Amino acid sequence: MPSEFDLIHRYFTHAVTHTDLGVGDDAALFRPRPGMQLAVSTDMLVAGTHFFADTDPTDLGWKTLAVNVSDLAAMGAEPRWALLAVSLPKPDEGWIAGFARGFLDCAHRFGVDLIGGDTTRGPLNLAVTIFGEVPAGQAVTRAGAKAGDDLWVSGQPGRAALGLASLRGRLELTPAGRLECIAALQRPQPRVALGLQLRDVASAMLDVSDGLLGDLAHLLERSGVGAVIEETALPIAPLLACGAGTGAARTALLSGGDDYELLFAAPASARAKAQAIAGSLDLAVTRIGTLTDRAGQLLIRDPCGKLNAQDPLGYDHFKPHAP
Amino acid sequence: MPSEFDLIHRYFTHAVTHTDLGVGDDAALFRPRPGMQLAVSTDMLVAGTHFFADTDPTDLGWKTLAVNVSDLAAMGAEPRWALLAVSLPKPDEGWIAGFARGFLDCAHRFGVDLIGGDTTRGPLNLAVTIFGEVPAGQAVTRAGAKAGDDLWVSGQPGRAALGLASLRGRLELTPAGRLECIAALQRPQPRVALGLQLRDVASAMLDVSDGLLGDLAHLLERSGVGAVIEETALPIAPLLACGAGTGAARTALLSGGDDYELLFAAPASARAKAQAIAGSLDLAVTRIGTLTDRAGQLLIRDPCGKLNAQDPLGYDHFKPHAP
Repeated sequence: MPSEFDLIHRYFTHAVTHTDLGVGDDAALFRPRPGMQLAVSTDMLVAGTHFFADTDPTDLGWKTLAVNVSDLAAMGAEPRWALLAVSLPKPDEGWIAGFARGFLDCAHRFGVDLIGGDTTRGPLNLAVTIFGEVPAGQAVTRAGAKAGDDLWVSGQPGRAALGLASLRGRLELTPAGRLECIAALQRPQPRVALGLQLRDVASAMLDVSDGLLGDLAHLLERSGVGAVIEETALPIAPLLACGAGTGAARTALLSGGDDYELLFAAPASARAKAQAIAGSLDLAVTRIGTLTDRAGQLLIRDPCGKLNAQDPLGYDHFKPHAP
Repeated sequence: MPSEFDLIHRYFTHAVTHTDLGVGDDAALFRPRPGMQLAVSTDMLVAGTHFFADTDPTDLGWKTLAVNVSDLAAMGAEPRWALLAVSLPKPDEGWIAGFARGFLDCAHRFGVDLIGGDTTRGPLNLAVTIFGEVPAGQAVTRAGAKAGDDLWVSGQPGRAALGLASLRGRLELTPAGRLECIAALQRPQPRVALGLQLRDVASAMLDVSDGLLGDLAHLLERSGVGAVIEETALPIAPLLACGAGTGAARTALLSGGDDYELLFAAPASARAKAQAIAGSLDLAVTRIGTLTDRAGQLLIRDPCGKLNAQDPLGYDHFKPHAP
């Protein structure tokens, strides 16, 4: 049986393009480019908590890196390097080969050098650390939003939650809708290009990993503002077209996690620019509300114009959602 | 019950001293000092594979960071920042408080800013990523050793393995020896000051995490050299003084893991300097052999002068050693 070292070498060794010393020593060595600040983040994915243990390993490999890439997109940072620590029940070569394929696909797609890691025995657990670069002082945090700013979301939040519900047999979707929503769940597309271009536009930004309202609550807290969301502005029609009922679609859109769209605030003067950037990337962005000076207050204006207070309904990782 | 966010904030928030943006956003932000290269490494510790699930959480917190700090020491890099990803069966506040105390003790001891992380539900798993700085081009890798160089080891390898055997009731030690060896296992002291000062002295270096011979094999492979170890030069007396028999002491010294001493090569001309550095740190270093031009060949010269070929007996993480 191949050892951990053999397996790592066989499947995870790839040519690094911007690293001084990659896999194989006590530490990897690299330097950010002049004038750049480093943005770093780590995410741990656990079988039974974040994914089904029988998830296709290639999809899982993609997603394991993609959710980390998304954290950098949300800062307006360019992904550059990653480390991968894996705990595996047994050194299953087929699984490792598939996982590595998906992981390295994602790495190549987003220009990431895999520069090191760790492999050990234990319950299936995947921990990635990602490093990106951003021109010093230009990162977009969660803290810069101002009352009066518009609130925007990219793409189609809600599809991943519908995909999960469909996989679990809790929801019927159209055949095409099911495929689209499961793809959103299993092959999330981090919005890196959008995040980079929004550096000059967004006053605050984060990615929607735990659900739109739950993540919005973090932005409101860090920026010290409130929000009014316009129910009629929410991009719900595409979810209905996938075959979801109105209730399921609304819940998925507002509270579903795992979409990795960008939620951002921007001054009203930047509307045309935000739309132009999204248009150039062939990606939808939707203006879903406005920020207010009522710190932490989250209201949804219903189609009749009535304002309803809203709990964030955030997703807490101590309450597993999948499976 | 407090949520993951509450628990993280309560116990892991600490004042960062050299970080632009710490815990609480999609990514942390920092900049290496001018002229510095970044050294990064990740280690994953799994309950049942690397430690007993009932290990004292404060000891475990210390060790979780210390083993990562040791990877940087082995490069001659200065520890500066860390990320911590934790998977926990349940949000046990007492456990988290104890773990955080040990982890942050180690962070303060070695000047590390904890700048981010992730907490989730799952089998107990601890993944740290550590970032250090080293003047560009001055890191000590595993690859620079030359035939004719001396082979050195710091401190007292073998104590951690004796401590583990004693804890498992497989070995009797003296009362003082038992305490000393268990402390070596549970509170390893990464050799950061030694690693930094050896930058000008060592031609190759790594830390002894998997066992002296197993780790030496990595150095030989990366440097393309062989080694002759002098049995009579090995620092075995202190292990005998702890109450171990000759066989157990020898096995622990050569094949025990978890000591986090530094194993390094240096030219014979640097002997006085290596001893002076160690003396100034009140730490022993022992010259245990010589490197040869027989790539990958590992020999041990017994007390009668006979050379015996040696398997590395390396520790493979797919074969759990503790418990």
